[in-house]
Amino acid sequence: MGCALKTNMLSLWRNFFVLEEQMLEVDCSILTPEPVLKASGHVDRFADLMAKDVKTGECFRLDHLIKSALEKIAADKKTAQNVRDEIADIVVKLDGMTKDEMNDILIKYKIKSPLTGNDLTEPIEFNLMFSTQIGPAGSVKGYLRPETAQGMFVNFKRLLDFNQGRLPFAAAQIGNAFRNEISPRSGLIRVREFTLAEIEHFCDPKEKNHPKFDLIENTEMMLYSACNQMDGKPAQKMTIGEAVRSNLVANESLGYFMARIQLYLLQVGIDKKRLRFRQHMSNEMAHYACDCWDAECLTSYGWVECVGCADRSAYDLTQHTRATNVKLAAEKKLPEPKTITVTEAQANKAVIGKQFKKDAKLITDALASLGETEAQELKAELEKVGECTVRADGREFKLTPEMVSINTLSKTVHVEEVVPNVIEPAFGIGRIMYALLEHSFRIREDDEQRTYFSLPPLVAPLKCCVLPLSNNTDFKPLIRQLSTELSKQNVSHKIDDSSGSIGRRYARTDEVAIPFSVTIDFDSLNTPHTATLRHRDTTLQLRLPVSDIPLAICDLASQRRSWEDLEKVYPKFEQQEASKAS
Amino acid sequence: MGCALKTNMLSLWRNFFVLEEQMLEVDCSILTPEPVLKASGHVDRFADLMAKDVKTGECFRLDHLIKSALEKIAADKKTAQNVRDEIADIVVKLDGMTKDEMNDILIKYKIKSPLTGNDLTEPIEFNLMFSTQIGPAGSVKGYLRPETAQGMFVNFKRLLDFNQGRLPFAAAQIGNAFRNEISPRSGLIRVREFTLAEIEHFCDPKEKNHPKFDLIENTEMMLYSACNQMDGKPAQKMTIGEAVRSNLVANESLGYFMARIQLYLLQVGIDKKRLRFRQHMSNEMAHYACDCWDAECLTSYGWVECVGCADRSAYDLTQHTRATNVKLAAEKKLPEPKTITVTEAQANKAVIGKQFKKDAKLITDALASLGETEAQELKAELEKVGECTVRADGREFKLTPEMVSINTLSKTVHVEEVVPNVIEPAFGIGRIMYALLEHSFRIREDDEQRTYFSLPPLVAPLKCCVLPLSNNTDFKPLIRQLSTELSKQNVSHKIDDSSGSIGRRYARTDEVAIPFSVTIDFDSLNTPHTATLRHRDTTLQLRLPVSDIPLAICDLASQRRSWEDLEKVYPKFEQQEASKAS
Repeated sequence: MGCALKTNMLSLWRNFFVLEEQMLEVDCSILTPEPVLKASGHVDRFADLMAKDVKTGECFRLDHLIKSALEKIAADKKTAQNVRDEIADIVVKLDGMTKDEMNDILIKYKIKSPLTGNDLTEPIEFNLMFSTQIGPAGSVKGYLRPETAQGMFVNFKRLLDFNQGRLPFAAAQIGNAFRNEISPRSGLIRVREFTLAEIEHFCDPKEKNHPKFDLIENTEMMLYSACNQMDGKPAQKMTIGEAVRSNLVANESLGYFMARIQLYLLQVGIDKKRLRFRQHMSNEMAHYACDCWDAECLTSYGWVECVGCADRSAYDLTQHTRATNVKLAAEKKLPEPKTITVTEAQANKAVIGKQFKKDAKLITDALASLGETEAQELKAELEKVGECTVRADGREFKLTPEMVSINTLSKTVHVEEVVPNVIEPAFGIGRIMYALLEHSFRIREDDEQRTYFSLPPLVAPLKCCVLPLSNNTDFKPLIRQLSTELSKQNVSHKIDDSSGSIGRRYARTDEVAIPFSVTIDFDSLNTPHTATLRHRDTTLQLRLPVSDIPLAICDLASQRRSWEDLEKVYPKFEQQEASKAS
Repeated sequence: MGCALKTNMLSLWRNFFVLEEQMLEVDCSILTPEPVLKASGHVDRFADLMAKDVKTGECFRLDHLIKSALEKIAADKKTAQNVRDEIADIVVKLDGMTKDEMNDILIKYKIKSPLTGNDLTEPIEFNLMFSTQIGPAGSVKGYLRPETAQGMFVNFKRLLDFNQGRLPFAAAQIGNAFRNEISPRSGLIRVREFTLAEIEHFCDPKEKNHPKFDLIENTEMMLYSACNQMDGKPAQKMTIGEAVRSNLVANESLGYFMARIQLYLLQVGIDKKRLRFRQHMSNEMAHYACDCWDAECLTSYGWVECVGCADRSAYDLTQHTRATNVKLAAEKKLPEPKTITVTEAQANKAVIGKQFKKDAKLITDALASLGETEAQELKAELEKVGECTVRADGREFKLTPEMVSINTLSKTVHVEEVVPNVIEPAFGIGRIMYALLEHSFRIREDDEQRTYFSLPPLVAPLKCCVLPLSNNTDFKPLIRQLSTELSKQNVSHKIDDSSGSIGRRYARTDEVAIPFSVTIDFDSLNTPHTATLRHRDTTLQLRLPVSDIPLAICDLASQRRSWEDLEKVYPKFEQQEASKAS
């Protein structure tokens, strides 16, 4: 059932984002060669801090360890108020702390292993990526991707071509990502393998307005700004239009996606009262991001980040350009041609080849891909010192004026180069699914043993359950015919012909969130055949001609028609439903 | 576009198998702990043979290497006919050959590295699974799953419970699998990461008839039996009913799935004339399988296995039962209670505990899970020799009569235990997709520069392209309105308002398999608004009221209505389409 729920959530996601916004969709490999993740910074920096029990070797994620140890101290009645205040301050700042700062806290508060009381090691950086070897020779290192985004960055050129060179455009990818979490926990919330649905919206850094912003600008949202978090104030309700106009949200494109994220979450069935957007504080935001908001859902585990929405500026494309010397940029036609001065290095390949042999290509490539500022600096160095230093592949090469000449010249250009900025909404599908299950869990007022999930028909795992009142074989042809007609309308359904009272079987369909049930009873055998249609949330029943049922459920399931619409057309069917699930 | 095609193929697959057959669907993790794949036999045996160039270390997959080396010899005009015959015989048998047999061939034909001519090493077994470490301590070994099936076997108990203990039932899973291929090649056909859609149909070994067999028994199929392969005869056309009745196909359940596989492939758009089912020969079939048929598609790479369909008997559940001592079996109610004699071991835990200390539990568990035959053997051994040997965890333990007594007694039983057999249809989605692209590629008769894919609307990446005749801004409101209405009908579409002649833009939509195009021209601006609807395969056009278009395309896309149906209702629109793609 969870599988069908997830499939329906993803299908809605594709309709809502990929199809409605005409995004380009990609499906990149999970196995990722090391150079890609080296360029992105993941090999060097995608780590969590941990500390080990010096005797047992047990590993603890450092921030979780400190938080729970300090909260225990703060809960102790004997702890002085000033210590409590200090602890409260640390807990807020923990996310942005360095290794040394955390180590100081370990020492100051004498934090030990929570399981054994043993001493702990100093903080250790633990890279969260799973590594493996690709190919039979064992010489190619790879990782399981820790996010789906990199596949879209390295394919940027193809995507841009497919979009005929025009900005803005967005790419989307749904797939699994892997993080070797130090301590997986909380069910679907912190797992080592999870499904992401990510969007990379590539836009001109100077044109972050969004053409469809007017469609969503009046969307009311609960925004928890960085300022309010620091000042201990609560989240505030405002429209996304107000938020962008007051510069609380950095730009229209970011705001557009925030509003769309909210609309998607509400359509899936997330409770609006348990949803907020929290802005990253400067100490937790990646240094390159210019603004970042998390859609958080309130669950029994507290507020949980379910969707991140960041303006990542030009960081990612720049990183990959640097690593590969392949320019990941778009060209923008200038309103009119302009004359510019450019500084270019002219390599004397013969001399460089003779001097540097097999490194020659490295050097000439580096010279060819110099930026304007770098070229000017080299020129100055060459003129001043009589030689200059070029860096390539992590090494330095000294070049003389015989090897390279650097000239400033005038050029008429018709286009300008733009390194697109990236707005990245990233959905943690498992987390949304978990929050959704909590938000839609209901207990019947008259019987706390009877529970159900009030999932919207659009995402409910199955749309309908077909129930013969009893085992009587006379019901079979009608059931088979109805099932065939439901399949023709693409209505997913199950047939529950197991023994058990009808009340117990209703309870079972409620528990797996099936929104509609059709019961075939003895009256159904008379012509024209009729049957009852039951609504999960209200347990109300209507009596319909069997021939009307497939289309009625198809319309209800796609939410083109509501239960109330049907009530206007068909008579109520009154019968006491066994109230106990016994 | 490929991504959308794949999504549509998978969505159709879910409708066709999971929903229509009411299968249970699961979504297991890709990361798999070692014990699971140890139990399944993959850790020990999931290997390909390779040989390395002794100097460069380059690796070659042995069967591919031998095949191409021998084919080269056979192609040589100087090669004698008897050698050619021998080679032809080897090539047929290659799939089932042992390491030593292949080594003999390497030596006999003096096969060298095809790249350098250097000598090769002896054959080496190379395990095809990607391994990694799970968790921060680095002590838990895991693999990326090489197939999705194992997740369904280890979850068998849950699935059976969910099905209320009843057989038969089927589980299905769609997801990625990974094989560290020695030499990936042929585009999507041999890749290291690929999407599988697998079904495990669990049934009583004595009841392999299928309740819905009558619905498909007249399906005509091209069957290439093991006998015909050995005798050098071609595949034969027959109905699946005939094939099962003549025992060519082992049983109705296997036959049912073979027919359903064919129906699915045809619905997706595979060419019936380029599809056959090839039976595994006894030397290539896994030893536990009792029958296995591959759905093969003819491509430019030859016949390619796209779907496997095997009767795997009780092998998998038995393996996992053995490894875990957890019985993976179902209970079948007997028509009437019966009295049976059973042989049971009664462990004297005190004595065993004293003697074997921490191994005691291993031994008592092994005694508790003895099968009837094993128990009888132990009893005989104990009576004859005065002690008996119990195996657990790969070790042997000697037990004396003080430690264990083995008794035969009578019991009345109401159920019998059944280890279900498994019929496994396994779909390689990437391979089907590749074959589909070859099978649906078309060149226009009047212009070989104009090509298109004749994908069925159901799986085509996008259903519709909306084209304004020119850049004229008067078209914009109508385009926007049409796009909104198409979205409401869930019709995936793109708007191509780029510059370029209408002919060139039609060519572009044809190339990405969009089956229908709507063109807004100057006549469209008059009320009532009308537009042309163009059919990709025939390039014919009709003139429709704009308000009719969304529903018409929705019906065409879901294949509820055909183009011919529309031709009866709407007038033809005659206009020369620029025949050159220029």
